[in-house]
Amino acid sequence: MTTLPDLNNASRDDFVAALANVFEHSPWVAEQVSMQRPYAGITQLFMAMKAAVERAPAELRLALIKAHPDLADKTQRAAGLTSESNAEQNSVGLDRLSDAEYDAFQRVNSAYRAKFGFPYIVCVRRHTKDSILRDFARRLPNDAAAEMKNSVEEICRIAALRLDQTVTADDRLAVHGRLSTHVLDTHSGKPAAGITVELIELAELGASRTVTRTSTNADGRTDRPLIGGRPVPAGQYELLFEVGDYFAKRGVPLSSPPFLDKIPLRFSVSEPEGHLHVPLLVTPWSYATYRGS
Amino acid sequence: MTTLPDLNNASRDDFVAALANVFEHSPWVAEQVSMQRPYAGITQLFMAMKAAVERAPAELRLALIKAHPDLADKTQRAAGLTSESNAEQNSVGLDRLSDAEYDAFQRVNSAYRAKFGFPYIVCVRRHTKDSILRDFARRLPNDAAAEMKNSVEEICRIAALRLDQTVTADDRLAVHGRLSTHVLDTHSGKPAAGITVELIELAELGASRTVTRTSTNADGRTDRPLIGGRPVPAGQYELLFEVGDYFAKRGVPLSSPPFLDKIPLRFSVSEPEGHLHVPLLVTPWSYATYRGS
Amino acid sequence: MTTLPDLNNASRDDFVAALANVFEHSPWVAEQVSMQRPYAGITQLFMAMKAAVERAPAELRLALIKAHPDLADKTQRAAGLTSESNAEQNSVGLDRLSDAEYDAFQRVNSAYRAKFGFPYIVCVRRHTKDSILRDFARRLPNDAAAEMKNSVEEICRIAALRLDQTVTADDRLAVHGRLSTHVLDTHSGKPAAGITVELIELAELGASRTVTRTSTNADGRTDRPLIGGRPVPAGQYELLFEVGDYFAKRGVPLSSPPFLDKIPLRFSVSEPEGHLHVPLLVTPWSYATYRGS
Amino acid sequence: MTTLPDLNNASRDDFVAALANVFEHSPWVAEQVSMQRPYAGITQLFMAMKAAVERAPAELRLALIKAHPDLADKTQRAAGLTSESNAEQNSVGLDRLSDAEYDAFQRVNSAYRAKFGFPYIVCVRRHTKDSILRDFARRLPNDAAAEMKNSVEEICRIAALRLDQTVTADDRLAVHGRLSTHVLDTHSGKPAAGITVELIELAELGASRTVTRTSTNADGRTDRPLIGGRPVPAGQYELLFEVGDYFAKRGVPLSSPPFLDKIPLRFSVSEPEGHLHVPLLVTPWSYATYRGS
Repeated sequence: MTTLPDLNNASRDDFVAALANVFEHSPWVAEQVSMQRPYAGITQLFMAMKAAVERAPAELRLALIKAHPDLADKTQRAAGLTSESNAEQNSVGLDRLSDAEYDAFQRVNSAYRAKFGFPYIVCVRRHTKDSILRDFARRLPNDAAAEMKNSVEEICRIAALRLDQTVTADDRLAVHGRLSTHVLDTHSGKPAAGITVELIELAELGASRTVTRTSTNADGRTDRPLIGGRPVPAGQYELLFEVGDYFAKRGVPLSSPPFLDKIPLRFSVSEPEGHLHVPLLVTPWSYATYRGS
Repeated sequence: MTTLPDLNNASRDDFVAALANVFEHSPWVAEQVSMQRPYAGITQLFMAMKAAVERAPAELRLALIKAHPDLADKTQRAAGLTSESNAEQNSVGLDRLSDAEYDAFQRVNSAYRAKFGFPYIVCVRRHTKDSILRDFARRLPNDAAAEMKNSVEEICRIAALRLDQTVTADDRLAVHGRLSTHVLDTHSGKPAAGITVELIELAELGASRTVTRTSTNADGRTDRPLIGGRPVPAGQYELLFEVGDYFAKRGVPLSSPPFLDKIPLRFSVSEPEGHLHVPLLVTPWSYATYRGS
Repeated sequence: MTTLPDLNNASRDDFVAALANVFEHSPWVAEQVSMQRPYAGITQLFMAMKAAVERAPAELRLALIKAHPDLADKTQRAAGLTSESNAEQNSVGLDRLSDAEYDAFQRVNSAYRAKFGFPYIVCVRRHTKDSILRDFARRLPNDAAAEMKNSVEEICRIAALRLDQTVTADDRLAVHGRLSTHVLDTHSGKPAAGITVELIELAELGASRTVTRTSTNADGRTDRPLIGGRPVPAGQYELLFEVGDYFAKRGVPLSSPPFLDKIPLRFSVSEPEGHLHVPLLVTPWSYATYRGS
Repeated sequence: MTTLPDLNNASRDDFVAALANVFEHSPWVAEQVSMQRPYAGITQLFMAMKAAVERAPAELRLALIKAHPDLADKTQRAAGLTSESNAEQNSVGLDRLSDAEYDAFQRVNSAYRAKFGFPYIVCVRRHTKDSILRDFARRLPNDAAAEMKNSVEEICRIAALRLDQTVTADDRLAVHGRLSTHVLDTHSGKPAAGITVELIELAELGASRTVTRTSTNADGRTDRPLIGGRPVPAGQYELLFEVGDYFAKRGVPLSSPPFLDKIPLRFSVSEPEGHLHVPLLVTPWSYATYRGS
């Protein structure tokens, strides 16, 4: 991490070195914006880099697109990715696919390359495996111009997240979302403390996986957001609340087995940078939820 | 099926023949109550049979207990069960157990026989596989006297269900429960028609299984109860409501993917003869449920 | 009350006498449909009477309209209304108006007569005082043709209700609505029994009035619908549920004073012949309601 | 207002002058705690003053009690109260009582004085008129010792609020509560912006009064708490939400008149220093509320 003032004062070479991989294998973007220093904020810096990409000659933009690796490609992974690409692909689990998932991704790469002549690019930190495949199905029918545009847009999203992790400034790029919950015990009229909550990312192919497992505090909330400080990957999730144990411990009269034990709330995330709040209002005999913010 | 008036008027032999297997391999129960005819109702007939069992000498009650087969025992099934026992065990899936389940049931049978010297008896039509095993864990620590009593109680429950399926009368035995649902679309303020609803019996060992899959009618209800005309087996269930399709068809603006798609309601049944109503109040962004009746 | 078979078999004079005032002061309607006897049902009879009105010469329809009294007119009331008109006007409280209400109705009558030359007619059993005035404001801007049509429609609604109260048959006219409630105690997971429920008709002018005050039974319902066997007058209502007493009697821990004591649900009725169900799901700390059916 | 550091550094006379009326007509309390300066915080200062009162001779404590005026006494008001007492009594509306209320308060004063020989003291800023009368009914049966204790406790609550308005420090006394709301539109899945909200204090005697009338912002909340920065007076309230207008403006299909128009939520406050959140989750056909925090 470096600071924006340091970057503003750095030599041209140091500036370019620090931002060389914000756009994959494309230090020319950093070179072009070096002269416009000083930047008042990271947002201004990012907009300058984005503008540089957008006004570049079409050949250069195509080269930028082609500089990206395929998703989940074992050969390319063996040969070595940039550390940024590697971390991004791992974040969404592309390094540990089931066979069915691996096959699905290979089909995506091949079909897309065969049609457009460049790799399928998506900002994977904003996605689950399911939503990558879903978006692919949406994008494959497009024409080449639309996909050039989409690719550049995804590349800029990747760049924004890389820049956010590289440079600190007084302002922040709007690249982070938040997923939170709270549990209100409407039997006692108080926040429900000590309820075990599990967040599971559901997968159509391959196995679902636990994102986090935590417990509610005295306010009925979790100490930290279930997901925060990063995009909330688009996809389908389940929150699992262990309310049977909670009410049993409090000595509330229950049926045997309890009518409600582990309550699942299943929902989808469609805006990775949004604030999504999914609360539970619960008694031993009823519950309700809603999309809050 | 026969009618109560017919039974009241039948010869002693025909009466006994008709009710011979209401208590497993024990026509003596029917014999004992033959003389008290006529019966004003099926409830009175059943109470007479139950009383005959309860006042029988201890040896005879033990013989009645021992006349029952083990649960899910392949050797006994091969050698032939009464058709009643066979149908009962199949109803809860004891004829198609996974290996893990089969092992679990063998352990139950052996442990129980080893301790008490008679088979583990439970009225299986009132249970799921999970709840049979759960009840076993609850009963095994008992002493022999308590288990003689529990066995006779279960035998009487089995007999009540067999009698209900053998004889029609003006009154009915209270052996049937009901599980129902309805869906209210609080976005449009109307019953939600045409929502696909699936009822799944959850299993800890082995696979969950779909009990029924149906669709809501113009009243937001299913044409028939999800389970009715029989006990609702104790155990854990999930109702799955396909609300994403429903709202999409109605042209309601949704996120992509929809925030709510297939909504699971997970709950337990603890009173097989009770009336349990599990409704869903739903908009594309919120839902609620409660235990109704 | 008479029966349809009796009417079918009656002399022409008796038939006309029985139905003379179904249409106010207009026995000619009954005369015209006498010949078409026998009627298979009351619906068929009503449709015949309605058709007779609709195909009558315009002068006759106008005479029928003019045969109706003004609403809440003290002079006409003193001079004597038909007993049907009298009962209808009393049902909605037109015999006991506040001064402000009386003035409002006089203004309505005058303005309407001044514009159209015939009285303002509305089927008052389908209305509250507020909704009569509201409808008037909606209808006054119409032209004469539209109001001839509206008047005949209201007259037919009045006639249907009078016929329903005069003749019994195997079928029934669809002139009755229903307003019902139930209370579910989601703190204990059971229907809430013994909750005092009051239904109040709200009025913008004049005082609100209690329509009924009753108590929930073991099913959490009222023994009879709050309003049933008649149209549910369009207008604004409040249901008042005394939940503080209920939970206190059950020994549930409450704050002092209780967070929730008398819960008001305020709603409007817009379809007098519809079935409207307004339930309450309640704990000492939360509640919910919805429009059910 | 003065600051704690200024008080710590002030002369003894200035210190006493600044705090002379924190305890009504009793500068001796300030005198006693002057020597213990400097105080690390306002809480420490208040605890010292409270301790001085509690260890004072019984006669002095009785004199302190007797130094307080009667509630709502016109003669005393005419003769002049301390400005603090005057503002306190006005805050709860004791300067503008209806005749019925005035009579009720006179009866309270007389009955209490007759029994105990000193005035009925209550920290009125923590109460509505109704809850003052309610508390009186609870306290009158007590014996004199209990009421000496209760009076001192109320006097200390009055003093804490006066001190809080006189002195600023880094810490704050825990004398403020908060009442807030928010409206979630579960029809559109978004916070409901632009809903008019009215908070009404209900009164059994005399008229209810509007505490505040405001509108929800883009977050579905009000810009400021409905009540904040002061105790939330114990008593019964109604929140009135104008949801009919809101949904009509958004073009949502509604019945005519709308099923839900102005929704009242009626609830009681029992902890004036607590944080009470009363939200509304609403569609045109359903709503829910709960006690949040």
